[in-house]
Amino acid sequence: MSTARDQIIQATCELLELQGYHATGLNQIIKESGSPKGSLYYYFPGGKQELVAESVQRVGTIVLNRIRQNLAVEATADEAIRAFIVNIAVNVELSGYHAGGPITTVALEVASTNEHLRAVCQQIYAEWQAAFSDRLVADGVGEGRARSLALVIIAALEGGIILCRTQRSREPLEQLAEEMERLVKSALAA
Amino acid sequence: MSTARDQIIQATCELLELQGYHATGLNQIIKESGSPKGSLYYYFPGGKQELVAESVQRVGTIVLNRIRQNLAVEATADEAIRAFIVNIAVNVELSGYHAGGPITTVALEVASTNEHLRAVCQQIYAEWQAAFSDRLVADGVGEGRARSLALVIIAALEGGIILCRTQRSREPLEQLAEEMERLVKSALAA
Repeated sequence: MSTARDQIIQATCELLELQGYHATGLNQIIKESGSPKGSLYYYFPGGKQELVAESVQRVGTIVLNRIRQNLAVEATADEAIRAFIVNIAVNVELSGYHAGGPITTVALEVASTNEHLRAVCQQIYAEWQAAFSDRLVADGVGEGRARSLALVIIAALEGGIILCRTQRSREPLEQLAEEMERLVKSALAA
Repeated sequence: MSTARDQIIQATCELLELQGYHATGLNQIIKESGSPKGSLYYYFPGGKQELVAESVQRVGTIVLNRIRQNLAVEATADEAIRAFIVNIAVNVELSGYHAGGPITTVALEVASTNEHLRAVCQQIYAEWQAAFSDRLVADGVGEGRARSLALVIIAALEGGIILCRTQRSREPLEQLAEEMERLVKSALAA
């Protein structure tokens, strides 16, 4: 069941992913969510910061669950990570290069200007990194190296999505998927 | 000699890096550059789009030259690439995590909304990639693999800068530098 509150968060998530924090105004959120004007401050008395924090957290948790579920499907970590990145590439293309990197623009915009939102983004990146790291440890990679590889994967995903959107092509992420598979395979063999 | 035109571009580059395209208004650019109000449209009759395109191009070329110069210093490509990434990490820290990724936010913001600026960003990423690729080829890596590794390096840099700014720490890029060195070394040995 989708409540008015949910619809506001959903609309906010989509707008943040498409155009970032600064470009997303409360009036546009109200319009896109189809909510009555008064409902936004009723549900989010803290205004834009509270709403964005909850939206970023929401989408961060959705992505986290997707990472954990997808990584569990394949037999080996290298295959699982390759498949995950290719899947992101396909989704970025399917969105017409509008979506992908749901928190990236916000993270960059608020890193130096809003300490609360910065901390929320940091927490989400840490959770994503832990999900990749756990899968690598499960396949026998040492904890330190697993954390390091997980960092490379998160960074390559963030950067790769930027490049796909900028090039309007899914090729950068597909190529990154191959390189990450190779990197993880060599860590598994070590 | 710094002309009024240069000062406007310089101020624009700094604001774009700090806060992105949407948050950067013409009034703020005029104020930060210390230019008289009429001068902006005098020098940039195409307004914000023309000014941002030229600023992004300017900073893209500065970074390109820095990549080429820095990569030429070290004896081997793996050392050169590690040193380059560590250097970026130090600079992101020195900026108080305000700077780093001079075109990243703009690229994400305009990818789906402004075709001209999107194409400018795409061109700059391609030039940076070619600079890394050329250094790898010079050390004996095959052209296809060199392009693929250069893509990983650009993506890891873009993603790593986001993570450093979000964590307010230079550690993510330092760790990525080690992983990229390892990856390049294995390609050189192959």
